[in-house]
Amino acid sequence: MARLLKIAGARAGGRLVVGPGDDCAVVDLGRGPLQLLKTDAIVEGVHFLPRTPAERVGWKAAARVLSDIAAMGGRPREFLVTLALRANQSSAWVEGLYRGLRKCLARHGGEVVGGETVRVPEGSAVMVSVAATGEVARGRILKRSGGRPGDVLAVTGRLGGSIRGRHLRFEPRLAQGAWLAGRGGVRAMMDLSDGLAIDLPRLAAASGCGHELELPRVPRTPGCSVAGAVGDGEDYELLVAVAPRAWPALERAWRVEFPRLRLTAVGRLTAAGGSSLKGGWDHFRHPPQAL
Amino acid sequence: MARLLKIAGARAGGRLVVGPGDDCAVVDLGRGPLQLLKTDAIVEGVHFLPRTPAERVGWKAAARVLSDIAAMGGRPREFLVTLALRANQSSAWVEGLYRGLRKCLARHGGEVVGGETVRVPEGSAVMVSVAATGEVARGRILKRSGGRPGDVLAVTGRLGGSIRGRHLRFEPRLAQGAWLAGRGGVRAMMDLSDGLAIDLPRLAAASGCGHELELPRVPRTPGCSVAGAVGDGEDYELLVAVAPRAWPALERAWRVEFPRLRLTAVGRLTAAGGSSLKGGWDHFRHPPQAL
Repeated sequence: MARLLKIAGARAGGRLVVGPGDDCAVVDLGRGPLQLLKTDAIVEGVHFLPRTPAERVGWKAAARVLSDIAAMGGRPREFLVTLALRANQSSAWVEGLYRGLRKCLARHGGEVVGGETVRVPEGSAVMVSVAATGEVARGRILKRSGGRPGDVLAVTGRLGGSIRGRHLRFEPRLAQGAWLAGRGGVRAMMDLSDGLAIDLPRLAAASGCGHELELPRVPRTPGCSVAGAVGDGEDYELLVAVAPRAWPALERAWRVEFPRLRLTAVGRLTAAGGSSLKGGWDHFRHPPQAL
Repeated sequence: MARLLKIAGARAGGRLVVGPGDDCAVVDLGRGPLQLLKTDAIVEGVHFLPRTPAERVGWKAAARVLSDIAAMGGRPREFLVTLALRANQSSAWVEGLYRGLRKCLARHGGEVVGGETVRVPEGSAVMVSVAATGEVARGRILKRSGGRPGDVLAVTGRLGGSIRGRHLRFEPRLAQGAWLAGRGGVRAMMDLSDGLAIDLPRLAAASGCGHELELPRVPRTPGCSVAGAVGDGEDYELLVAVAPRAWPALERAWRVEFPRLRLTAVGRLTAAGGSSLKGGWDHFRHPPQAL
């Protein structure tokens, strides 16, 4: 994708503050907050099944975009929804999908302002594509690239096993993302969509760092193995890099602010190039590349 | 779609100046120009064929969105591109598509700032979904709903026969749309994507008017019948409603500004409810409803 966007001429510069490669593109409109832009599509047979309740499909389509906005410390604003449907799709299914979308936005912010429905040929997968704007105050934006060697790496919530249902009903971490972006010492952030084993090296690479992951400290969903916690994906939790001096106070403040959600230190950023896993288990030393 | 967007909670209000039902959604960011938001998808087997050159597919995907921005009098800004591809799609095809997109934006404005590629199951149609922002100065925006009884209806260019190739290489009317939006007396505008027979009644209805169309005056692509000119669709020309007193001067100024492109009066808006076709041919008195 990075290469394709290069062909398309995409690069940060001008009013594009953050280009391809982060959770959202960031545009400086010249006044007021920075604007976040994001698009994300989910496909039948890949991200949901024909039997998945339509409302859950709608929730997931909205929540995935919200999670990316959360990862920049942002606030969601306008949403455009594209539905690619087969001729035989029932109107009840489509209405259910929109109900799910609306519920998710009503809970977390954002408003559907338009979109369209296109017909796909018989035999094609149904697809839901959501594009959104968001905003974040200048100076509050958290990119993937801000981490430095020595930073504490921490994750929200528990990881792994999302496929058992959580991937259809997760709560995007908007409040947490905005709170983290407003704290001193938080230097980099992203959301975990492909699993810690893939996403953590991305944040480290964007920051020009190596990383050290302490596997036994990774907070696991009950019943989930370490391999599942780092490899399953679709966690939609936040990963942050925090200046080591700021970490103790941040951890305490977090417990007061979000008493029902964990924030767990799982490793550190290191000097460039290095990558190590502690805990006697190194299956993910060379994580699979994303497509 | 209007009903679905209602389920999703979409309605003008707050900072949403224009909601679903116009060519773009319009958002008031509280300062500076108004922001336009648009998303549009094209599907293999519907909007292009497997054998269509990839560069033409990319051009069309971008140009359709640009045409909607032109229809609001706007200027294109940031673009997000979603590609839904099969596993067997060649990288040469994808690169060709991006080249076409880039060429179209280089010519007409706008910049790709992000996007994603999703995999669709074998047998699914390829899809290209483009979301974009645009901007238009306050007070310069042209909606579909501004027309009044008596307004002259005029179209740019020639209509019909687009399927013979023009639909893959048309030039969106951005310069013309911005110019028209800056002229006094131009009250409503839209782009012609489904054909004059479908789109003109939409503009009239949005303006609370009836309409009178003089079929012999409709400018036809050489070799194209009147039926084709009003019914073929995919013209991507502009339709405007102009105050009758302003029309003569506007027509003269147009010829100076755009000597190589026609602007042709084809009818009038009338008092609410009425719809008539002049020219001895009334096949389209009850135009087919869009899906």
